[in-house]
Amino acid sequence: MFKGGFNRAAIAAFCLALGAGAAEAQDWQHAQNNINGPLTLHSQGSFFVGGQDTTSDALNSGSPSSGTVTTDQMYVQFQIPESRGKGKTPVIMIHGCCLSSKSWEETPDGRMGWNEYFVRNGYATFLPDQVTRARSGFDATILNEIALGLDGKTAKDIPYIYSIGHEGAYTSFRFGATNGVPYKGEQFPVAYVEQFYKQMIPDMNDFLGVGQPPGLYVGPNPTYNNLSQLAIQLGGAVIIGHSESGFFPENAALVSTKDIKGMVSIEPGGSCTTVNPETQPLTAAQIKTLARIPTLIIFGDNLNGGWLNSYANCQQYAAAITQAGGDITFIHLPDIGIKGNSHMMMLDKNNLQVADVIIQWIEKHVDK
Amino acid sequence: MFKGGFNRAAIAAFCLALGAGAAEAQDWQHAQNNINGPLTLHSQGSFFVGGQDTTSDALNSGSPSSGTVTTDQMYVQFQIPESRGKGKTPVIMIHGCCLSSKSWEETPDGRMGWNEYFVRNGYATFLPDQVTRARSGFDATILNEIALGLDGKTAKDIPYIYSIGHEGAYTSFRFGATNGVPYKGEQFPVAYVEQFYKQMIPDMNDFLGVGQPPGLYVGPNPTYNNLSQLAIQLGGAVIIGHSESGFFPENAALVSTKDIKGMVSIEPGGSCTTVNPETQPLTAAQIKTLARIPTLIIFGDNLNGGWLNSYANCQQYAAAITQAGGDITFIHLPDIGIKGNSHMMMLDKNNLQVADVIIQWIEKHVDK
Repeated sequence: MFKGGFNRAAIAAFCLALGAGAAEAQDWQHAQNNINGPLTLHSQGSFFVGGQDTTSDALNSGSPSSGTVTTDQMYVQFQIPESRGKGKTPVIMIHGCCLSSKSWEETPDGRMGWNEYFVRNGYATFLPDQVTRARSGFDATILNEIALGLDGKTAKDIPYIYSIGHEGAYTSFRFGATNGVPYKGEQFPVAYVEQFYKQMIPDMNDFLGVGQPPGLYVGPNPTYNNLSQLAIQLGGAVIIGHSESGFFPENAALVSTKDIKGMVSIEPGGSCTTVNPETQPLTAAQIKTLARIPTLIIFGDNLNGGWLNSYANCQQYAAAITQAGGDITFIHLPDIGIKGNSHMMMLDKNNLQVADVIIQWIEKHVDK
Repeated sequence: MFKGGFNRAAIAAFCLALGAGAAEAQDWQHAQNNINGPLTLHSQGSFFVGGQDTTSDALNSGSPSSGTVTTDQMYVQFQIPESRGKGKTPVIMIHGCCLSSKSWEETPDGRMGWNEYFVRNGYATFLPDQVTRARSGFDATILNEIALGLDGKTAKDIPYIYSIGHEGAYTSFRFGATNGVPYKGEQFPVAYVEQFYKQMIPDMNDFLGVGQPPGLYVGPNPTYNNLSQLAIQLGGAVIIGHSESGFFPENAALVSTKDIKGMVSIEPGGSCTTVNPETQPLTAAQIKTLARIPTLIIFGDNLNGGWLNSYANCQQYAAAITQAGGDITFIHLPDIGIKGNSHMMMLDKNNLQVADVIIQWIEKHVDK
């Protein structure tokens, strides 16, 4: 009978004894080592923002079946520190392509993620899963219609689904220039990269706009509106976006600036002009609107390929916001002495150091 | 500038002022009302169990693209109470069809879920998302192969995907016999049923066994093995399953009984013989194996349709386990004076009362 709390020695012995399962047991051992002192919460929970009722004629792919389903809803988990977040604007963290809010939790090597670190620093944190991803779900109707041959739909109508392979992630997330060979001084915990690969899941944003040309979804994304609504429900929030969602804070602000107190764009995927629709250049009026909200843009080290384009584009964006009288800070981490950071800087070995950069910015530009 | 912690009066005013958004603001208001005193954790985090590398020739549906993806991994979030779970066997809670581990979190009307209640009662809790669901992800290769027409694959090869409509859920989850009309004394918070519908997401278990006849997946499910591995990593666990996963604890035990200290089967979907494959009757040897682990089976009120079959079948199973010398408890909640419970008893208004039934059983049969 198990009676003694968690027995680390037993788990360590298990790791040594077992071959194939050792890495997994090690995960859990790491998890137990994630001891930063007790964490006291005022409260925690999860809820949904947005969503609407839609009638589906293809609830399953076995036989035609009609009913109502909810679509476009956004799952949000939250934790409020014992201080109830007093004096600190709540933080919403929205994950990137092919990922879920797992990005903000425990790192692949078992260290504390940004969700907990922000809570320990007195911030209430709100972690959505993007609409069509993970616990937010997606509308499977189109796939079932195709399977059933309804309305003349065929395999050509399957929306664009994007999975990133290990090899592509290794280089594009900048763990190294070549698959399996880390950059010198690389901060990503590459010894645990297999654990990271487990959190990569298919990106189904194109399910939001069936009929678009193949490519990641470029139309109006309900996540923008949901983020805006969430900020309003909180009575004020800083929105942190990353990669695919790097410009989601700005897109949410273009829905409504109300209660968006700050925007943090971490290595926006594509560019700093991925507004709704993504291909449309920002207008002067939009720049003026966005300039009303303090903004922080962050890029890590070893920028390559498309990231160099994003970097240049975001610098142009920053110049435009400054020109419009806005308060925008552009940080290239190596320039402030923080080197070796990958695209997944919230999971890097120095992830808390990067978090401190954001926290200090919030203190100076939002909660001043 | 937001400076004063969460301002409930302001949110209440917002609810009154706003028409369409009021329900959502109310969610958050409820979330804030979820005050049961501070919660102190020893630690928390998330990790993955299982998973394997697979080569995909269709990483996306736009053009053929090859690479390695991880499949069959299981996301697990956990919280360990300040007591470090001393004297109490950790609890794994695995959700049912068309749902994620959101099932165990905050209820649709903003009350505490079983995850937090068990932690507050001194249990370390582990909440997986089933393989192919939510943060565990799924292998999109087959859909992309169909979209690209690779290997002669056509729309007929789309795996079975199952979404449950609102109307079907209302009656089959036993909120009422007729859609929109709750049973007298119904315990499900039907005033917030729209919030519940937001957590229903497509069931893609058939992606684990492409080529099966249409129907929910009936072959070997990696979740069984992952649950077994998780119990072993924890050095002992009670596994609680519900509905589709109601018999997952038993299926995990048929992989290995090692470190499965107790099994709780809440209204198993289908029957108490849904072993691997589901259509195969349990053998005498399997019954003997399962009889080695203390088991609790729970059914709620207003049983109808298929639930009456499950109930009868699980009673037969309990008789067989007893015959084999096992320790099995079968509880029909109305028989012990707990009335009106739906299939989603972890979300019902008396959800903590039902949790107490499980906790008391664990105390008497597992941690004795």
